[in-house]
Amino acid sequence: MQWTLHILQRQRGARMGTEALGRLAEERVDHRFKGLPPDAHGRTVRELAAQRRNLFTAEGGFTTPLLVLSAERLAHNLALMESYTARHGLAFAPHGKTSMAPQLFHRQIEHGAWGITLAVPHQVRVAREFGIQRVFLANELVDAPALRWIAAELAADPGFRFVCYVDSVRGVELMDTALRGAARPVDVVVELGAGEGARTGVRSAADARAVAEAVGRTDTLRLVGVAGYEAQVPDADPARVRAWLRHLVALAAEFDKDGRFAGAGEIVVSAGGSEWFDAVAEVFAEVPALSLPVLKLLRSGAYVSHDDVHYRRLTPFNRVPEEGALEPAFRLWAQVVSRPSATEAFVNAGKRDAAYDLDLPVAQVVRGDDGTERPAAGIEVTALSDQHLWLRTGSGADLQVGDWVGFGLSHPCTVFDKWQLIPVAEADGTVVDYIRTCF
Amino acid sequence: MQWTLHILQRQRGARMGTEALGRLAEERVDHRFKGLPPDAHGRTVRELAAQRRNLFTAEGGFTTPLLVLSAERLAHNLALMESYTARHGLAFAPHGKTSMAPQLFHRQIEHGAWGITLAVPHQVRVAREFGIQRVFLANELVDAPALRWIAAELAADPGFRFVCYVDSVRGVELMDTALRGAARPVDVVVELGAGEGARTGVRSAADARAVAEAVGRTDTLRLVGVAGYEAQVPDADPARVRAWLRHLVALAAEFDKDGRFAGAGEIVVSAGGSEWFDAVAEVFAEVPALSLPVLKLLRSGAYVSHDDVHYRRLTPFNRVPEEGALEPAFRLWAQVVSRPSATEAFVNAGKRDAAYDLDLPVAQVVRGDDGTERPAAGIEVTALSDQHLWLRTGSGADLQVGDWVGFGLSHPCTVFDKWQLIPVAEADGTVVDYIRTCF
Repeated sequence: MQWTLHILQRQRGARMGTEALGRLAEERVDHRFKGLPPDAHGRTVRELAAQRRNLFTAEGGFTTPLLVLSAERLAHNLALMESYTARHGLAFAPHGKTSMAPQLFHRQIEHGAWGITLAVPHQVRVAREFGIQRVFLANELVDAPALRWIAAELAADPGFRFVCYVDSVRGVELMDTALRGAARPVDVVVELGAGEGARTGVRSAADARAVAEAVGRTDTLRLVGVAGYEAQVPDADPARVRAWLRHLVALAAEFDKDGRFAGAGEIVVSAGGSEWFDAVAEVFAEVPALSLPVLKLLRSGAYVSHDDVHYRRLTPFNRVPEEGALEPAFRLWAQVVSRPSATEAFVNAGKRDAAYDLDLPVAQVVRGDDGTERPAAGIEVTALSDQHLWLRTGSGADLQVGDWVGFGLSHPCTVFDKWQLIPVAEADGTVVDYIRTCF
Repeated sequence: MQWTLHILQRQRGARMGTEALGRLAEERVDHRFKGLPPDAHGRTVRELAAQRRNLFTAEGGFTTPLLVLSAERLAHNLALMESYTARHGLAFAPHGKTSMAPQLFHRQIEHGAWGITLAVPHQVRVAREFGIQRVFLANELVDAPALRWIAAELAADPGFRFVCYVDSVRGVELMDTALRGAARPVDVVVELGAGEGARTGVRSAADARAVAEAVGRTDTLRLVGVAGYEAQVPDADPARVRAWLRHLVALAAEFDKDGRFAGAGEIVVSAGGSEWFDAVAEVFAEVPALSLPVLKLLRSGAYVSHDDVHYRRLTPFNRVPEEGALEPAFRLWAQVVSRPSATEAFVNAGKRDAAYDLDLPVAQVVRGDDGTERPAAGIEVTALSDQHLWLRTGSGADLQVGDWVGFGLSHPCTVFDKWQLIPVAEADGTVVDYIRTCF
């Protein structure tokens, strides 16, 4: 009976998601979306996708600047993390803040993800609009209208699973006040800070206990686990990260021994950004038997597009190459609009189009008007304005006004958020889909 | 007859604009828009505005993070630049890339603006969707599908005035190729670079002449003036900026003397960001009599919201206080979600919500749960993550989990682009309008 209900609820979530994704496909291509062919105006996204236009041909009609996702690389990354997490016995709630793309959320779930991690209530609202049934909010939440909205979602949909952080007694009290009268308690995990000077999370086991006790005094919250973010460990290195992850596991074991998870159907232990999931896999493999099943929840989000600079350098697969390799799936195309001297060029993409918080874009290839592609030899990005990238060109650089330059990017989170509809293209430039983001 | 046609065309543009703005007001409040009250879901923007909700009350129901524009300060800034440009005999095409907000474009035009400046064709498409009849594209444009789209707009609407930059012979040739067969020529101005190492624009008067000659060889382009961007003058100071502006004026006079503007109804001379419009006003007042009327076109865009850091420091009104003062119109509200130690606090806004390219946000005020507002004494923003601001709190700081912190921001261009629907509130917190952006 319980099982049948569960199946029906999952089906309901999937149906809601399918319907909402269908509405995305029926959106009209118009002034809201950058880079799309002017002659596609008024068509639906579904119709445009069915035309399988080419990025690079005159008939395709795409304009610059234009961010593109690689269809093959997206598929590769989705499959790689599915097999990685399965092999290591990890549940997976990839961080959705990275893409805020409901289509990618659903592909992640189709690839075995338990649910989606998010950071703020607005993002939960997007996920719910698209039928996501399990949300892990990796953040404290004390906003009263947002809490009441979440309580209403929980009341209306028995299949909706929601877990969020707590890291202060006052936060627990504010949540309790906002949630009085709610039909179902909100599941919470105590966030353990990654050390002195790290971001959010309790700074000591004593503080963790005080927060857990405060949760125990409420009827509106249910303690189900512990969580944290190992990338914030000060001077993070493999040994320090593992040591902190062991503290996190020990905290779960202590809470369990003290009976603090009574009433939880399972115990959640969660960590894992995109820099240390090898350490998370290793330490979570050591989690001892507890009084309830343990959901070992990894939250890495950047893998879906990966990148060409920051995560290329920091990905755990560099340490475990035998487990595979992610592939950078973004390319930003921009056009040379000015070549005022032999050493300078400017393209028509800037802060509105490319991430610039961690690293500058990297020129990779040049396409001339004959349609051939050549390496971007001797071309270096030196700066970025709102609507321009500044290029320094060496003596060997072959670059003229009108050429398209393909750039690799750093930090997926601040790439996705600059584009509302992103073409997904196969290697030959055929656009097979369009990914809608909701920031 | 000509005059009647002109009036009819202007009316047509205004009507198109009014209709499109009306469609914005009929948009549904939903998951696309951050910070809005959850219980407003499904209402139209017009209905929500009519409710005149308060930002700060439980009934208002707004959630954090939340970017807000001040109604009074917006109105003040719009009026101030209207009177400033009128007093100095300048036509005004405020740079629309700053806000990409069609409602603000129309308010700028109602406040006497000649038209709107933009940077890339996608932005022109937004402006045209909302009936903007005069667009100054302060950038080179060699993208063939975009050029053909602009040619079609020019052909379809005799009232549409469009001017863009040229700075290379090759660029002129690419434009000419793309525009063959167009019904009307595209008006262009030669962009004069601001010096060695500056951004786009020809580096010498000889190059400028070569580009002008190339334009003269086409039937698809019409040379109507010169333009540039004085803020790019290397080691810009008042003397160097004025010297460069005089070069720009001299180039216009030389081209005029050489008969290069034959066929232009007026001569366009354009400069002016948000740091040096006092110098532009001064030097453009010296423009000599030319063979045609001169449109002295200022393009400053950041004034509409102004800011609390970058432009507060650099605004020309600091040099000419007798001419008025812009007022920072943005405030970002975020909520303290974590207070892990006496010296640390974290709020729920980050790179997704605040500009961070020029300066970090500045904590200004704190609102406690009793609704009183106090100065943010002893609170300093030290860093910014994707979804968090890091605060360092001194011994005098009065701040606890749940408090709202109001932040001042730097660089309007990278604030507007993080919000798709921005409440406009009066000083007491009553929200009277919502500004839609189209990035």
